[in-house]
Formats: sequence, C-alpha cells, structure tokens
Amino acid sequence: MLPTTNFDPPFTLTRASHVSLSVTDLAASRDFYRDVVGLVVTEETDDAVYLRGLEEAAHHSLVLERGDEAKALRVGFRVRTDADVVAAERHFASIGLEHRRVEKPHQGPTLQFRDPVGTHLEITSSMDLVPRKMQNFDEFVSGSPQRLDHYQVVTYDVQTATDFWTGLGMRMSEYTAKDGTDELWGSWMEVKGNTHDLVFTNGHGPRLHHFAYTVPDASSLLHAADVAGALGFGQEIDRGPGRHGISNALFLYLRDPDQHRVELFTTHYQFIDLEDVPIRWDVSNPQRAQLWGMPASRRWFFEASEFPGEGLHEPLLHATPATLEEFLGVH
Amino acid sequence: MLPTTNFDPPFTLTRASHVSLSVTDLAASRDFYRDVVGLVVTEETDDAVYLRGLEEAAHHSLVLERGDEAKALRVGFRVRTDADVVAAERHFASIGLEHRRVEKPHQGPTLQFRDPVGTHLEITSSMDLVPRKMQNFDEFVSGSPQRLDHYQVVTYDVQTATDFWTGLGMRMSEYTAKDGTDELWGSWMEVKGNTHDLVFTNGHGPRLHHFAYTVPDASSLLHAADVAGALGFGQEIDRGPGRHGISNALFLYLRDPDQHRVELFTTHYQFIDLEDVPIRWDVSNPQRAQLWGMPASRRWFFEASEFPGEGLHEPLLHATPATLEEFLGVH
Amino acid sequence: MLPTTNFDPPFTLTRASHVSLSVTDLAASRDFYRDVVGLVVTEETDDAVYLRGLEEAAHHSLVLERGDEAKALRVGFRVRTDADVVAAERHFASIGLEHRRVEKPHQGPTLQFRDPVGTHLEITSSMDLVPRKMQNFDEFVSGSPQRLDHYQVVTYDVQTATDFWTGLGMRMSEYTAKDGTDELWGSWMEVKGNTHDLVFTNGHGPRLHHFAYTVPDASSLLHAADVAGALGFGQEIDRGPGRHGISNALFLYLRDPDQHRVELFTTHYQFIDLEDVPIRWDVSNPQRAQLWGMPASRRWFFEASEFPGEGLHEPLLHATPATLEEFLGVH
Amino acid sequence: MLPTTNFDPPFTLTRASHVSLSVTDLAASRDFYRDVVGLVVTEETDDAVYLRGLEEAAHHSLVLERGDEAKALRVGFRVRTDADVVAAERHFASIGLEHRRVEKPHQGPTLQFRDPVGTHLEITSSMDLVPRKMQNFDEFVSGSPQRLDHYQVVTYDVQTATDFWTGLGMRMSEYTAKDGTDELWGSWMEVKGNTHDLVFTNGHGPRLHHFAYTVPDASSLLHAADVAGALGFGQEIDRGPGRHGISNALFLYLRDPDQHRVELFTTHYQFIDLEDVPIRWDVSNPQRAQLWGMPASRRWFFEASEFPGEGLHEPLLHATPATLEEFLGVH
Ligand SMILES: [Ca+2]
Ligand SMILES: [Fe+2]
Ligand SMILES: [Fe+2]
Ligand SMILES: [Fe+2]
Ligand SMILES: [Fe+2]
Repeated sequence: MLPTTNFDPPFTLTRASHVSLSVTDLAASRDFYRDVVGLVVTEETDDAVYLRGLEEAAHHSLVLERGDEAKALRVGFRVRTDADVVAAERHFASIGLEHRRVEKPHQGPTLQFRDPVGTHLEITSSMDLVPRKMQNFDEFVSGSPQRLDHYQVVTYDVQTATDFWTGLGMRMSEYTAKDGTDELWGSWMEVKGNTHDLVFTNGHGPRLHHFAYTVPDASSLLHAADVAGALGFGQEIDRGPGRHGISNALFLYLRDPDQHRVELFTTHYQFIDLEDVPIRWDVSNPQRAQLWGMPASRRWFFEASEFPGEGLHEPLLHATPATLEEFLGVH
Repeated sequence: MLPTTNFDPPFTLTRASHVSLSVTDLAASRDFYRDVVGLVVTEETDDAVYLRGLEEAAHHSLVLERGDEAKALRVGFRVRTDADVVAAERHFASIGLEHRRVEKPHQGPTLQFRDPVGTHLEITSSMDLVPRKMQNFDEFVSGSPQRLDHYQVVTYDVQTATDFWTGLGMRMSEYTAKDGTDELWGSWMEVKGNTHDLVFTNGHGPRLHHFAYTVPDASSLLHAADVAGALGFGQEIDRGPGRHGISNALFLYLRDPDQHRVELFTTHYQFIDLEDVPIRWDVSNPQRAQLWGMPASRRWFFEASEFPGEGLHEPLLHATPATLEEFLGVH
Repeated sequence: MLPTTNFDPPFTLTRASHVSLSVTDLAASRDFYRDVVGLVVTEETDDAVYLRGLEEAAHHSLVLERGDEAKALRVGFRVRTDADVVAAERHFASIGLEHRRVEKPHQGPTLQFRDPVGTHLEITSSMDLVPRKMQNFDEFVSGSPQRLDHYQVVTYDVQTATDFWTGLGMRMSEYTAKDGTDELWGSWMEVKGNTHDLVFTNGHGPRLHHFAYTVPDASSLLHAADVAGALGFGQEIDRGPGRHGISNALFLYLRDPDQHRVELFTTHYQFIDLEDVPIRWDVSNPQRAQLWGMPASRRWFFEASEFPGEGLHEPLLHATPATLEEFLGVH
Repeated sequence: MLPTTNFDPPFTLTRASHVSLSVTDLAASRDFYRDVVGLVVTEETDDAVYLRGLEEAAHHSLVLERGDEAKALRVGFRVRTDADVVAAERHFASIGLEHRRVEKPHQGPTLQFRDPVGTHLEITSSMDLVPRKMQNFDEFVSGSPQRLDHYQVVTYDVQTATDFWTGLGMRMSEYTAKDGTDELWGSWMEVKGNTHDLVFTNGHGPRLHHFAYTVPDASSLLHAADVAGALGFGQEIDRGPGRHGISNALFLYLRDPDQHRVELFTTHYQFIDLEDVPIRWDVSNPQRAQLWGMPASRRWFFEASEFPGEGLHEPLLHATPATLEEFLGVH
C-alpha cells in the first residue's frame, strides 16, 4: 500500500548524516576506508576513528568503533535545529517509542531511538565544523567520496517501516512491489530533494545493507575499483560497476574487512516537485536493480550487518528478486 | 554586509525551474539547444519551443519565444504548493511590490513580478508531467543536460538583491566582496540544499548573465565542447572547460545564436546544515572564479541579456574582477 | 614453451584490419553494430553491410554478410605493400599452406588462407580511403568505437598457433600457462607496438572468441553499456565493465543478435622495445583475467563463433580458468 | 613542399624515448614532475633525477639535471637494436653530420648528434628494465601519465627538418602550410604508427616547445588541472584543456618551475596504412590548433626552451598563427 507523506511532520529531518560501525580490527578498517574508499580521517582516538567525505564540513559521517563483533551500531540523521531534537523527543514520547538523549563527541544534542522495525537510529542537529577538503585535489584518493548520501536497511516489514518514515516527512520516490500489486518489497524515500535518503528492502531484518557515499564522476568509481584491485580488495567488490534501474545511479559496492558494505555512486536525480509520482517496479523485473549486465549475487542480496542485540525476523512478504545464481542457471 | 536568512519566509520557494528567452530565429535557437546543448524538445508551437533536461519530469525548463529582439524574458522559480502562490501574492501586495497573475500553458497558478533590482521573475507551483528521459541513453546528445539548476543575474546593487532573496528564505553559501571588506560584489544563494539557485554579481544591470544545466559527468562537458566544435559553435564557448573556485563546479559556457549564455556544469556541493558558514572571496582573487587556467574574458564578464523594457543602471560598487585581457597583459 | 619471434619475417604484417561475419538477419545486425556499438555504416549492398570505426580511413573493418547460419567468416590483417601479398603467397606455397587469391570489393590484392590451427584468415595491402569521422563528434553514438584493434581465437593448440604467428613476425607480450609451467594456455601477440593484435586461448577450436574496437575513454564504455540497456541489449553484455589483468585494458563485451561477441576497450600499453619481456600468468590466477570484481562466466569462456566447415578439436592442454560459476559456489 | 618518406632508412627509429632538461632547482622540479604531473621517480642522484611514466618499463623517459641555466639538453629516440646505433653512426659519418658516442647510465649504446636545424638529439637501443607501474593504481597521482609520446620543436626551417627526418623513415601524418600553399609552417611526423613522434613548427629556433606524455583518460587531464590548481600551479597551465584540430588529442599544457613545457594528452589516432595521406591545414585556420574554445596565447606560441650553446635563427617562413591576444582584440 502506498504511504502518505506527512507534510507537517512533528520535527524536520534534513539528511542522512553519519553511520557508526563496530569493527574488529580498528587499524585495518581505518586503512580500508581511507585508502580503498578514499575517506578523510578527521580524528582518531584509542577506540574510534572519525572519517568524512571530501566535501563534508561536518566532523564525521562515519565512525568506526573498536568492538568484539562486527555490528552496525547506528545510522544517523540530521534535524534542522536543536528545537527539532526536542520536538522529536516529545513526539516519540507521545507515541510510546523508546528513545534517549546521549552525549556524542563533536555532535550537538543527540537523540537515539529504534524505529518500529528495529533499526538503530540517532538524530542530531549539528556537528563541529571542519574544513571542506573538496578543493584539496592533491589529497584525493581512490573513489574520492564527497559526502554520505543514504542508507539501505533490510527489514521484515517494509510497509511498517515506510509508514513510519513517511509519517516523519519522508517522501517515496520509487518502490518495488510484489509483481502486479502494491505490496511493498522495497521503498526508496527521500527528504533532501533527490531520490533517496533511506531505503528499506524486504528480508531477514533489521540489518544494515549498506551506506552510500557520492563520488564526483564515473571515473572515480572505476578508479576505486582499480585501487581496490591493486590493494587486494578486488574480490571485495560484491557488485558493480553497474547502473541501477531504480534511481539511475552508477554504483560500486565494496565489503570492508568486517564485511560491512559501502556503496560508491554518482548521485541520483532531483525529486522536489509535489506533482511528481513515485516510480513502480515489479520485484521480478531484472532492470529494476540493474539496467545492464548481470543481476546481483545472493551474497549481495542476503548478507548484511546486524544491529547489536537486535533479533532478526522472517520477512512478512514472500517475493524474491532475480539473483545472479539463477541467471547463470538459465543462461 | 552579510544578509540574514528568513527561516520563516512568507511562502516556500523550492528551486529554479524555468527560463524564457526571446530569440530572433526560432528554428536556429531550437537547433542549438537540442543539438549543441542536448536538451529535449517537449513541444513546439508556431511561436515557441519548450525544452527540458533529460531527467526532468516537468514540461519545460527552457522556453524559446519568437521575438524581434533577443531578450531574457523571465527567470522562473517553483514554490511548493498553490497556496504558496497565493501567499506570495499577498506578501508582494503587503510590501507594495508590483505583481500579476498570468495564465501560462502547462503551468499551475503563475505569478509574475520584478524584484527590487529589476529582475523579471515568475513563480509557479506545478507543471504538467512528462516522461523523464534519464534512462533513454540512446537519445542522449552532446552535453546530456539533466536539469535546470540556477541563474546568474548581473545587478547594479548586489546588497539589495541579496537582502530581498534571503528575506524570502534563500541562504548565502558563498560571496565575493570588495577586497578586505564585506561589501558585496557577488552573492551565491541557495534554497534547494546545494551551493546556489540564484546568483547576483555586480555590474550594469539588471541583465541575465546565464542559466545553468547540470551534466552527468565531466566527460559530458567535454563532449559538449567537441560537438559544439563539430557543429560550428566552437568559438561560442566563451569560457571553459574550467573549475570554479566558488562552488567547485567544472563548467562550460556557451553562447546561443542570439548570444544568450548557457552554462553546463557538474553540480556543486551540499549546503544544508545551519551551522555551515558562507565562504568569502576577495573580488581580486583570481582563484575565486577559476582554480586553474586563465581568467574569464571581458566578453564573459561584461556581456549579458537584457530584460525587455528594463533600463540599465551603473553598479553602485566599484570593484572589478581580474580579466583574461589584463592577465595576458602582465604575463 | 616460449616462442621465438622471427625478426626477418617473409612478409610484413602491420595490424588487425577487418573481420567478416555471416549473420542471419542483416538489418538486425546492422542496427546492433550501428546503434548499440556505435560503428559507422560505410556502405550497404543487398547482401552485405560494411562498417568502420570513427577514426578509420579504411573502407571497412567489419563486414556483415547475409547467411543461413551465424559464422565467423574471416579475420583480416593488413600487410605493408602489394609486394608483401606476393611474398606471403610465395611463403605459403613454400611451406605447403593452402591459400588463394580473391577479389574483395574496396580491398587491394587479397590472399586467403587457413593457419595451422584452422583459423580462417585474409590479408590485404590496402583499402579504399573514406573520410575519418573522428572529429564529427555530433555523429558519435554509444561506445564511439574508434578502430578495430585485435582478435581473440579459441584454439585446441595454442603452442602451434603461437609458433606459426611469431614465425611471421609477431611478438608475445603476455601469456598464460598451466600453473607453474610454460605450457601455453593463452598467448597474446602483437605486431603494431602495443599489447596484442592476435590472441589464442585454449579450448574447443578453432572458433572466433571476439574482435575488439578501441573506445576513446572509460566514459564511452559506460555509455555503451547504458545504451545497450536502453535498447534492450543489457543482458547481452556478457562481461564487464572490468579491468583485465592481462593488457590492463578496461573492457566491455557484448553479444550481437547472432551471439557473435564484440569487445569495446580502452586500449593497452606500449610494447615496442626489444628488451621488454613477456608477462607470465598462471591460468588459475583470477587476477589474470580481471583485476577486480567477479570472474567471467562459463558463457563468456566457452561460447564462441565457428568458422564455416571447420571441425572443432578437443584442446590438447587440460587446464581450466576460474569461472564465475565456481566463484559463486565457493563464496 | 611535401617530403618523401624513406621506407628503407639507414637505421630503424622506433619511438620517442627520453628527454633531458637542465633545471635550476632540482628538488623543486622533481616535486613538480612527481606531484603536479604525476611521474614516477625511478632514481635520484646528487645531480640528477630520473623519472618515468606509469606504464614504462624503461628506466627513464625524463632526466632532470641540476644546472645554472634552464635548458633543453637532449631529446632522445630509441632505435631497434645495437646494430642500428652502429648503422646510424656510419650514416651520419657518410653525410658529414657531427655525432659522438657517449656513456649514459642505464642506457645501451648511445649516440648524440645535432640534426641539420640544430636540435640536440640522442639515440639509444635499450635501457635497464624496471617494473611497469600501470597496475599500481593506488600510486597514481595527478595526471597519471603513462608514457612519453612525442616532442615538438620550434625551428627556423621546417622544410629542412622535415626532409631530414622523413629521410630517416619518419612519415608525415599532418601538416600546416602557409595559406593556400604547401610551404610548410609545421610538420607532424610519426614512426610508431600514430599521429606523431616529432613535430616541427615555424619560429625562432631551434628550441624545444614541449614534450608530451599520454594519460589514460580525459578525467586524468582534468584531475591534473585540479591538482595543479591545488598545489599553486593553476596559472602555469598555459593552454587547455582543449581539443586539437591536428591529431584530435585532448590536451593540457603545463609549465614547470623553469618554464619548460610539458603536455598531457589522451593519445591520437592510428596512422599505419601506406595509402593514408597527410591532412593539410592552413596556418590561419583557428581550428587547426583548437577545435573549440580560445586560441593559444602568445606565451604558448612564442616561449620555448633553448638548447645549450645553440644560437637562434629567424624563421625562413613568414606566417603567423592566430593568437588569443588577436582573438580577444577582434571579438
Ligand atoms: Ca582514453
Ligand atoms: Fe544505495
Ligand atoms: Fe553558474
Ligand atoms: Fe580482447
Ligand atoms: Fe604535443
């Protein structure tokens, strides 16, 4: 069922902002994100590394935390002002959604919560400013990632997730449904005026499927692949380069040393006007996921990062996308 | 003096949306924008041609109108809803700013007005939807322009222009000032979350300096230059390819058969967070306009398209940018 | 066993020059090579279509001939002068290799022959000149292929094929061998000063695996993939885009309507100096074929175009490359 | 007058191979070629730095030598074998051309000579082999130059220079002549099968105008410009990026700390077949030098590096190309 966007939401989300991961070898993960992906290290402490994209003025968009197990800790969003954090607190209290204020280094007022499908989240209204590196071209490395853009989360209940987030002001730009129906298999939602900031797809969840950084150019994607190959991560490209049907982005997916997945992509189209309608795709349509070349493998579809202490649930919807394994079987 | 953004504006602007030009040879101009720039022709009538970028779902972002003289007719913005058009009408009435409702084909309610520095404007809340062509890659031509992005207007009074538009909710991301001061020579303002939707620079005005379309990739810029060369418009590239200091975009400027100027560029950086501060540049800093290569020529700086019936005024500020002519003199 | 190049060959080969294919639907194949690949149609007759790359001044580098069955008819090479055709004739007679003079439209003196492993070949010393289209950028389509570059042939006896061609002056730049040995699984040989003009790989042969055109840029490869997707040939990309270990080229492989395979690639490195030594790869090394991403599928490895009336032979060497199917099994 | 290529030359030239420059600040020049251009440093001694392109297996293609004055010392070519060095020696003796054998580190037998227009040259038959870096993508810097490709020399007598070099087997692919005549203003000559290895243009000479490295892609050119800008060399781009009419290359020219000029470019078209005819351009044709955008400045046309102790001569031909300064005057 298609959701209704709440155009007068209780607080104002503005963008995907920062993700934190627990990693089992902090130095190896830092090296991966700095040398293979190309992020800038803003700061290192004994137990954490803070990184950002080249154009980002905010202190961090990726936080690696030393841990015993590889987990997706939090996906973070920005809200417009401090007052929006307070408004979110009030709203979550009113609907009985668990939440708590936390202190996070280099962040303004920060509120953590779980959405109704168990995604671990955090919103904040500001961060310490650091210099944008977008014109330090001599420091560009590998994919030259510019900024964090969006998240994709695997969930057992895409409809509930979609209703929750459109209720907070997000708007659906594209969606995948069980063939011939509007039963949601996947939902692409945006708040910053282009195709997506948050995606939910159907599967054992909640798990973080990937977080994505923009790159300046297709050549940056290819250079990232080449550098990954040169540094021994060639087979950790678990998909791409390819062109998404949904969102029309050129993409490359890499797995980090703990098998967390990061996407590099060349941004998407503008989605601002209210008369625009979401684009619908059948889940069995192979062009949905990829306009050309081979479909994604089972590894890409079915592996993702769990949130700590969060149980997994069987998906409510039974509908499976075309995989590379099937494709090779029939060809 | 730096402006203050009104975060509770009387109506909600969302983006630069459409520009109309009067052209003296309608077929020649259509051919130029279709074949040399690469826009899609949505519709042709006896006296007008409607064009759009490849990803645009709105009916038109460029309207060519047959005329006796080459003029910039209107620069158009979108507002969120029909109610915003009404709110704008009420607001302009309250401040005594001349305005009028007009009927425009394929547009929702439309309001025309002149801003305090004489720019001819039009806002509307919707347009007829047409298919996005962003995945019809076989129809991509020359620069493959994706969407209209922003305008640059030459004005005799940058401060007044800036105050007016930030009063309507725009936010300054970068600015150029007389050396060592905050006396504005140029003001880059945004409303859609990246560097600019509307730029004012100091000069004989009001005149439209250029309107700009995004391209997918640097290779699209270079292909546009090559196609321009092949089709006899090589010397109508009046600047670029180059890299702006301000906004960090790769750019290419072309003059159409009437000498209207269109920019193709590879988009800019995100500017959403409220703690971000505008970047300041001295007008005499050559890197302001171009990070590498030669400065723009006098032709680029001093030629622009007039609005019909609108007199030109001497700029209030006396400060001139470095030109190519000067640069060649000293080198 | 590594071959010895004959630096004083009986005649002078200069480059790979033209390939002819029999196709079952002439119009469909012409459309594919013109619209999906981007070749220029030089001439059409009732039973044939002659095409060339954008920079080519020679009349044709691809000839499509109407046929009942899809076959690889001939791979063609250029020799320096008419005298070289005569010298070749004399040489083949002296070694008892079957050959015959033929008249071919738009070609100079032409000699056909089968090499010792059954590859169907043709050499000529000149062609009719036609305009180079390399600066008609407005006519560039899809991959913008510039020129025919090389062939890859599947053979049951790589050693014999290699010895024959190095005896005619070709030089081995890279080779693949059974692990830990110099038993040849594949042999990359050049005559024009970069990595290869003719490649033999081990398998059921003789069959033509692919012929390859250069493209100006990585962006051309990606555009070709996008256009293939838009025109319904997205799943006919049977490999890539990817980066070869051998030769270091970025590549994309497409299957035509008869399943003949064409490669687009971004050229290779220079190989002129006599002190340069060939690069050796173990057949089981996955980086050999691809520096990053997934290995090629069985479809890519084992499908190829037969020559008319030429029986297939079991390969003498038993050694198999890593395939995508195996890769997915183990991952 | 058009030259006649000697197809049976006294010795076999194979390619442009290495250039040596005297520089006044060795560390500054090394930093420039390593960080701004992107060459690999093979070796440093007290008085010299040896560099090469990323794909080069030969020890050096650029030698920087510490000197009191900035000079072009030698442009170097490769011949096929040691026997060709001997043959060259014999040939130069027979025509009374001054020459001498020298010992050069990391080079095989080396012969130095001055051609009839005073260009300082050196030929050698081999060099020490070093690893090709073309797949060490993580070490790619700035323009990622792959290999030395060609030289351009300013001479007072293009006809004599052309006759000498075509007599040694070079072949003219394109030329510029006084309008409406075949009086040579510039001559593009090749020996390795694409547009040029050695260019002579009319002017005060002999002086080295530039040496050129290939880059993998247009994006490498743009990245080099960006890096030059970031490292303070933005205004040392004395031309480009642009597209040559002659040779069809995308180019970027940079001046080093001593004002020696280096070109980065995206290679040219194949020129192998003997039936191909040279392309002719009028010197006053602005598309000759640039298909789009502005012509080159006087700085680009008239500044070049002198050879030590070699007097300059007034050009015999009086014909001047269109300059940017003129172009701006008339526009
Ligand atoms: Ca290239
Ligand atoms: Fe994504
Ligand atoms: Fe602009
Ligand atoms: Fe190939
Ligand atoms: Fe050059």
